[in-house]
Amino acid sequence: MVAPDSGRQRIVTDERCLFCRIIAGDEPASVVWADGAVTVFLDTRPLFPGHSLVVPNRHVVTLADLDPTEVGPLFSVVQRLSEAVPSAMGALGSFVANNNTVSQSVPHLHVHVVPRRPKDGLRGFFWPRTRYDSDQEAAEVARRIAEVYRRLT
Amino acid sequence: MVAPDSGRQRIVTDERCLFCRIIAGDEPASVVWADGAVTVFLDTRPLFPGHSLVVPNRHVVTLADLDPTEVGPLFSVVQRLSEAVPSAMGALGSFVANNNTVSQSVPHLHVHVVPRRPKDGLRGFFWPRTRYDSDQEAAEVARRIAEVYRRLT
Repeated sequence: MVAPDSGRQRIVTDERCLFCRIIAGDEPASVVWADGAVTVFLDTRPLFPGHSLVVPNRHVVTLADLDPTEVGPLFSVVQRLSEAVPSAMGALGSFVANNNTVSQSVPHLHVHVVPRRPKDGLRGFFWPRTRYDSDQEAAEVARRIAEVYRRLT
Repeated sequence: MVAPDSGRQRIVTDERCLFCRIIAGDEPASVVWADGAVTVFLDTRPLFPGHSLVVPNRHVVTLADLDPTEVGPLFSVVQRLSEAVPSAMGALGSFVANNNTVSQSVPHLHVHVVPRRPKDGLRGFFWPRTRYDSDQEAAEVARRIAEVYRRLT
């Protein structure tokens, strides 16, 4: 459904969507930030305390579904969170991540911002790495991605 | 050092930086895309074939170090890659990630775009999750992050 025009933008909400209900204030959450375009709240099952989710108010499923004009405003919030989360939690760094379709538990686009400390146990992403069999194989993979990328540009 | 003004923007390069050398063309890489602001190339130790790195041409270390005007252009490339990488590799989804300081192997900002398939073995990020002891603890964490965030806004 489409919510009444707020004067800022049309917010498309889906009442069956947990994150839409949080954005609408119909579901409790520990909200860090909310403006006309973006809402930030704590993940209830954090990797580490302070693990935040940056979510566009408009219901879209994946990063690719976001209107190109919405990318900058969303990631400007992510940028500031990547500094605010470790600073507030006394951590050294941050992990910023977004799962599209696979491993995406809630089908409403969300960017994780997680505080990181050395030897905190979050190694998963770095294992297992693989290798290309040859430079030729890598060049062929790059060519295939480039071909699709250029069609999107 | 600061490279000669190209007429587009001043590109600050660091000759000791592997990614600056790739951007300058002084180091081989499987390049997917390059424009005046952003270069995309394959990670040589991919999580899965097609694993790409999106890198600002200007040498900055973390996402927080990026000029606010550079955030939108960088993540517009990431957005298109999040569609191009799985499409080109016959995968279902994508994993977009950026490590700042901790687990950051090369100290030049880079955003990973990784193709994902169901049951591909990349579970690490989702384990181990924890919980807040109480709603009060979560509210207090949200308040601390919000306080720092507002100072950055």
